[in-house]
Amino acid sequence: MKFKHHQHGKLQSLFAQMLKKPTQTRLFSAIIQKQGYPKTPLNTTNKQDYCLPSFRNQKRYSTTVKKNPSFKQVSVEDISFFESVLGKQNILATKDLGGDCELTDLDSYNISWIPEFHGASKVVLLPTSATQVTVVPQGGNSGAQGGCVPVFDEIILCLSKMNQIRDLDHDSGALLCDAGCILENLNNYLGQYNLTMPIDLGAKGSCHIGGNISTNAGGVRYLKYGSLHGSVLGLEVLSDGTIINNMSKLRKDSTGYDLKQIFIGAEGTLGIVTGVSILAVQKPAFVNVAMLGLNSFDDVLKAFKYSKNHLSEILLAFEFWDADCMKSSLSFHKFQNPFSQNYSFYVLIETGGSNSHHDEQKLYKFLDEAMTKGVAANGVIAQDFTQQKKLWNIREGIIESLVKTGSPYKYDLSIPIGKLYDIVNDVKERLVNAGVYNEKVSSNEHKPLITSVNGFGHIGDGNLHLNVVANKFDKSLSQHIEPYVFEWTSKVHGSVSAEHGIGIAKPNCLKYTKSPEMIDMMKKIKKTFDPNGILNPYKVLPQ
Amino acid sequence: MKFKHHQHGKLQSLFAQMLKKPTQTRLFSAIIQKQGYPKTPLNTTNKQDYCLPSFRNQKRYSTTVKKNPSFKQVSVEDISFFESVLGKQNILATKDLGGDCELTDLDSYNISWIPEFHGASKVVLLPTSATQVTVVPQGGNSGAQGGCVPVFDEIILCLSKMNQIRDLDHDSGALLCDAGCILENLNNYLGQYNLTMPIDLGAKGSCHIGGNISTNAGGVRYLKYGSLHGSVLGLEVLSDGTIINNMSKLRKDSTGYDLKQIFIGAEGTLGIVTGVSILAVQKPAFVNVAMLGLNSFDDVLKAFKYSKNHLSEILLAFEFWDADCMKSSLSFHKFQNPFSQNYSFYVLIETGGSNSHHDEQKLYKFLDEAMTKGVAANGVIAQDFTQQKKLWNIREGIIESLVKTGSPYKYDLSIPIGKLYDIVNDVKERLVNAGVYNEKVSSNEHKPLITSVNGFGHIGDGNLHLNVVANKFDKSLSQHIEPYVFEWTSKVHGSVSAEHGIGIAKPNCLKYTKSPEMIDMMKKIKKTFDPNGILNPYKVLPQ
Ligand SMILES: Cc1cc2nc3c(=O)[nH]c(=O)nc-3n(C[C@H](O)[C@H](O)[C@H](O)COP(=O)(O)OP(=O)(O)OC[C@H]3O[C@@H](n4cnc5c(N)ncnc54)[C@H](O)[C@@H]3O)c2cc1C
Ligand SMILES: Cc1cc2nc3c(=O)[nH]c(=O)nc-3n(C[C@H](O)[C@H](O)[C@H](O)COP(=O)(O)OP(=O)(O)OC[C@H]3O[C@@H](n4cnc5c(N)ncnc54)[C@H](O)[C@@H]3O)c2cc1C
Repeated sequence: MKFKHHQHGKLQSLFAQMLKKPTQTRLFSAIIQKQGYPKTPLNTTNKQDYCLPSFRNQKRYSTTVKKNPSFKQVSVEDISFFESVLGKQNILATKDLGGDCELTDLDSYNISWIPEFHGASKVVLLPTSATQVTVVPQGGNSGAQGGCVPVFDEIILCLSKMNQIRDLDHDSGALLCDAGCILENLNNYLGQYNLTMPIDLGAKGSCHIGGNISTNAGGVRYLKYGSLHGSVLGLEVLSDGTIINNMSKLRKDSTGYDLKQIFIGAEGTLGIVTGVSILAVQKPAFVNVAMLGLNSFDDVLKAFKYSKNHLSEILLAFEFWDADCMKSSLSFHKFQNPFSQNYSFYVLIETGGSNSHHDEQKLYKFLDEAMTKGVAANGVIAQDFTQQKKLWNIREGIIESLVKTGSPYKYDLSIPIGKLYDIVNDVKERLVNAGVYNEKVSSNEHKPLITSVNGFGHIGDGNLHLNVVANKFDKSLSQHIEPYVFEWTSKVHGSVSAEHGIGIAKPNCLKYTKSPEMIDMMKKIKKTFDPNGILNPYKVLPQ
Repeated sequence: MKFKHHQHGKLQSLFAQMLKKPTQTRLFSAIIQKQGYPKTPLNTTNKQDYCLPSFRNQKRYSTTVKKNPSFKQVSVEDISFFESVLGKQNILATKDLGGDCELTDLDSYNISWIPEFHGASKVVLLPTSATQVTVVPQGGNSGAQGGCVPVFDEIILCLSKMNQIRDLDHDSGALLCDAGCILENLNNYLGQYNLTMPIDLGAKGSCHIGGNISTNAGGVRYLKYGSLHGSVLGLEVLSDGTIINNMSKLRKDSTGYDLKQIFIGAEGTLGIVTGVSILAVQKPAFVNVAMLGLNSFDDVLKAFKYSKNHLSEILLAFEFWDADCMKSSLSFHKFQNPFSQNYSFYVLIETGGSNSHHDEQKLYKFLDEAMTKGVAANGVIAQDFTQQKKLWNIREGIIESLVKTGSPYKYDLSIPIGKLYDIVNDVKERLVNAGVYNEKVSSNEHKPLITSVNGFGHIGDGNLHLNVVANKFDKSLSQHIEPYVFEWTSKVHGSVSAEHGIGIAKPNCLKYTKSPEMIDMMKKIKKTFDPNGILNPYKVLPQ
């Protein structure tokens, strides 16, 4: 990969101009989007109200957002201005704005990866480098809360062409790159030097490091490598007309306030991340993957406890899912079941260490305890990389299988580990009592009915992905689920968004996890960094 | 330890009252201080200018701070007001304010642990619980940049009586406690449950967890457990008259902006940390400590590389120091030298793992490579806990030995690892050329002369503690060292404060590591959180 020289004069000047131009006192919600995505016709062009729609256009959420009348429409002159800076080839605009596109040509930018959120933007900016990004960029494509799509007709600025590695410090492991680099590409690049990214998630093939940082993404290695707040060394951010250039390679720096932290998880509402410096970690010389079948969630907890004792320093991931998730992933993807029998729960364990002999001894000791104590009913260990991949595919294929075969109400919750699965059972019971769910009866396509209530997640982090899958989205169903799920979570001092953020889906749910004082403080911060409110409006904070 | 119930009504109301009372529109710089400390007479009572003095009252820094005339004097009425809230027994005040103290009785609060910084406060508030802390507290005692002592006569609020553990979540390891808990006490408490703090440093016996968080302290386990930005789960902070209560036990929470991050490393200038939730880590079942003698810094770097390969996941600490540091620590503390010969450099390695047999095998493999390749000239492995402690004492005794036997100009620098020791050699050369340093000639007490230029630090983090030790502080010497050291560091894109913060010693040095845009942004944040500028004024940001 080529290393690039970065100048920021232009980036800054255009941003400053934009702030001055009244026409642009509107959202430059710029969204990094990946193309090649099933196109769904847009039916929301000039909408003034935004009822978060499902990809089937059934009303999924009850949130209604009103378009802010102080934000103006993009004009033909604006487009000429963008063209003068970025070049015609790096702009997609609709015909009424002088471009070549139909509105549907922009679907892959207007619709999120899980196609739950639809926007109606007529302009996509695709800068190719920071020298060229002379506008308000922003980005993403795989986010789960709709933070990444316009709510109305805001301009989309897509960072996918800003995808260059800038530097790698081999001594410290500091990797410096553009924000638009795809996570998996970074990992492949680092692999050559026996390094790896401190973050990994199912969407790695499409999500950008800038998006990861902006959502404070967690994922399957969080247990081992912890939060991005610890591993991000520096950011280059465009905020309030100035560039905050802090592309530090240093592990330690205590000079003044740690500004970068505030952009981590800000979902593009405080600034546009254009560059990232992150601490790559040593790639484990030896990796093992095992899958267990277990009879109860209590056994899952016990297995986790044993793993902490025996696998301790080599434990990379400890993921779990239930029987419904297993069924869904296996049957949708036509994956092979590693077990000849079904279990109530499954656990995937990954270890990584520097000595294969030691690692195997530790793993066998762990499995031995788990099996002899009757905690694991069954278990398999992958014999090679292909088998490892196959086991991981089952876990990582869950979301897609749920999304593509039903209409899932998805919740990403932090819950004290001991109570993690209680909410699945409680929601089930509630829905059975309400007469909308019956585990024994198969779904009726014509009547809105729940077909599955299931859960999977990152057990070591206390992070449950709860899914209430319906045959179609319907208000009559939602009312049984929300705000129940949020209230339940709030009661156990959990979080209504563990790792997916707030986006457009949940600003009104912030209150279940954060106090009014904290929300007020967040609003003050928003005002400090984005006084005109033009960065990703309507998102994150309640209006 | 007792668990406490916390109410915050009072805490908030007094703070709000203070903000309203004009008399209190002054610094409530409240400082957590540990007592039992050598008392040095204060000679700075009514000073209006503050030239950072050394504990020998020679002018050490060139920074001069003018007292802000808008801050008023504390009155007798203020004291009565404090008494009505905290009780007479929890306030120390001088006789002119109606108290029982001479000014010298407050020396242990007015002078920092390394007695380089002197304040002249007449009031110390010692709240015993958050219900009682109805004022603007702040704290610390071991900080290295003078952030912890008043500059003029600001009120000191000492959190040392707020030292209760609130809760420990055994599943997740979340420890909730008052900010005034001493780090070592927390560690001892956790030890009972096979847990340990993710931070460790030489001042553990006196520093508070609130102080650690406020300085974003690093220390000797940073290499393994990383930054406090990753391990702090939640904070309770009193800022701008409101309590930000975010004592979360959750590992993951992506609901809105992560406010706690901004207080980590803010050195008490944005809010008072009163409560802390931090992720304790599993205590390694087996610990090994080894010390190496090496002939060059290049060998130190090679040894570090080998340790990453062989010790990898069990490496807890990798510390180094040079011959001068060794000599100083051994002779001042009368420690026994584990080697019969002297070396140019020393390395201390600590490992921690879950299987003693595996750990030892890894350590021997590492030592084998280091010795056979001639990288380590000598090495010892501690055979029991007492020997481990003895090896650690040598490393941890360095600072005290330097401070107590000379006048050290101390610098805490982040530098790319490969160049880490170059600055020591460059500074030496510079001082030799200036005729103020000659390694071969012993010091002359009457003439200001450099007696040693040395370095030690946390090699894995690229963190060097550079010390230029003089027989006395003198401006004629400083000019040869500053700004040279800062400029040198800036040139290699290092940080002029890796882990000690800025305090009162370095606001004017911020510019060597942070851009004007970033400093402006910091000022905006200060204004957002502390609009009246009453929290630890004169500190961190340049005026
Ligand atoms: C199959 C699948 C599995 C997933 N697994 C996980 C998981 O395990 N853990 C997890 O945490 N998430 C997971 N996610 C969610 C998602 O992948 C993450 O949130 C990811 O970090 C989003 O990155 P993105 O580049 O796609 O961002 P986008 O979705 O494009 O954007 C997300 C938000 O960040 C903003 N943003 C993006 N780029 C920038 C930028 N450069 N500057 C400023 N703001 C920006 C956007 O405006 C938006 O608000 C998963 C998603 C899918 C589809
Ligand atoms: C022998 C020795 C070894 C050391 N080793 C290391 C090391 O390895 N790594 C390292 O990072 N540091 C080290 N230090 C420096 C020091 O110990 C750390 O900075 C420590 O974190 C300070 O904690 P404290 O409680 O003493 O804080 P203080 O010194 O009292 O205060 C430090 C700053 O934080 C503020 N503050 C303190 N408490 C609060 C609170 N509750 N709310 C808001 N603000 C607050 C103070 O106002 C001040 O600005 C060492 C110091 C000594 C003396």
